[in-house]
Amino acid sequence: MSQLQRIAIAPSQLQQGQILLTKEQQHYLVRVLRLRDGDRFIAMDGKGKWWLSQLATEQAQVLQPLTVETELHVSITLMVALPKGNAFDEVVRTCTELGVACIAPVLSDRTLLNPSPQKLERWRRIAAEAAEQSERAFVPTILEPVAFNTALSTVNSHQSSVNSQQYICEGRGNFPHLRYCLQNKGQESIVIATGPEGGWTETEIENAIAAGFQPVSLGRRILRAVTAPVVALTLISANFEV
Amino acid sequence: MSQLQRIAIAPSQLQQGQILLTKEQQHYLVRVLRLRDGDRFIAMDGKGKWWLSQLATEQAQVLQPLTVETELHVSITLMVALPKGNAFDEVVRTCTELGVACIAPVLSDRTLLNPSPQKLERWRRIAAEAAEQSERAFVPTILEPVAFNTALSTVNSHQSSVNSQQYICEGRGNFPHLRYCLQNKGQESIVIATGPEGGWTETEIENAIAAGFQPVSLGRRILRAVTAPVVALTLISANFEV
Repeated sequence: MSQLQRIAIAPSQLQQGQILLTKEQQHYLVRVLRLRDGDRFIAMDGKGKWWLSQLATEQAQVLQPLTVETELHVSITLMVALPKGNAFDEVVRTCTELGVACIAPVLSDRTLLNPSPQKLERWRRIAAEAAEQSERAFVPTILEPVAFNTALSTVNSHQSSVNSQQYICEGRGNFPHLRYCLQNKGQESIVIATGPEGGWTETEIENAIAAGFQPVSLGRRILRAVTAPVVALTLISANFEV
Repeated sequence: MSQLQRIAIAPSQLQQGQILLTKEQQHYLVRVLRLRDGDRFIAMDGKGKWWLSQLATEQAQVLQPLTVETELHVSITLMVALPKGNAFDEVVRTCTELGVACIAPVLSDRTLLNPSPQKLERWRRIAAEAAEQSERAFVPTILEPVAFNTALSTVNSHQSSVNSQQYICEGRGNFPHLRYCLQNKGQESIVIATGPEGGWTETEIENAIAAGFQPVSLGRRILRAVTAPVVALTLISANFEV
């Protein structure tokens, strides 16, 4: 079943058991994927629902809803200082594969560049593609980049209402390994922050601690800014995998 | 101390407490790093030894040996099916950061290309750079690419003599998560194999099992061929981190 081709649809396209396909989707199914009338594929709404569907010219017939079991039972938000150049593309792609729910790019004291608005569109497209390819039910949300302190206060007001844990990764300093800090006692939400090239400043770490974040290490070797989020996501996903 | 610049030297350059610098190393220290006579740096031999050193024109004075504690107490060999294009560069770089001891590129049934000999030199250079940047004491060994079955038999004859465990990662199928299979009972060596785009063939999995490999999952989402080795190394490193 999971070997079938998958396409993302908007929930509004599903009406009375039929999927009204856009011209682009018709082109993709028929010209690119070479499906014919009667062939099956999976329609996913990016919000947790998959449907086994059958192509019928300009629309598709929904055969049955599918149960997707590729999602974690915890919502992981990655707060990540924007790295140089295009390196963030790969962070978005890989962390989507690893089950992230929300990516919050932040501008830290040592971040060099403020990205253009086109970047945000690009990251969202990459997240949607990676969600399809890794067979996820959800497409992660990518927030607009904001200053690190702004992100801290937003998280702080939001997370206090749910069963949540917040961590900030720091390569230097003698902090406990994330592995020993993760619990698995019905957490609904985890926020993990990883820093820029050169690391967080001392003030940033202090502000994060004041906002309820626990400082943690990802091991004794110094990781690049693009490696740290992948390592953090891997450890959290594995901890909560059912 | 760890903020000092590091350069790799050959063990033969160290003679009676002096490091005889090559022309390239002199250029790098003086022109690139802008060190002056009397400035300190760290010389590392890539085989586990670091020395605090002081520049003295065309040579350097060893001040004292340094204790490095960035290495794992288990030797991890990554056996990895070569991905398309230049994607293997990034696998070498990231897995070096994560503490791998040996990378064995293999040609699997679904591997598309046999790499040129220049590639091997390139990968070794990337491993040396990544070892320096991540402050490791050892530079990982990169073996010449061989057929998967050849690699299996080599591992099999070598590993049987030490306290070793072997795993093969497979995205499809209902295998236990690597996280639940890792132990920490004085293993000296771990071998982990990750597959190509499209996964291992059934025969390859069977051959690996016959060679003593345990099939494992890296989670419920389908990972790209370049993501799987990073996830596997992260989980193993974290399990054995002291």
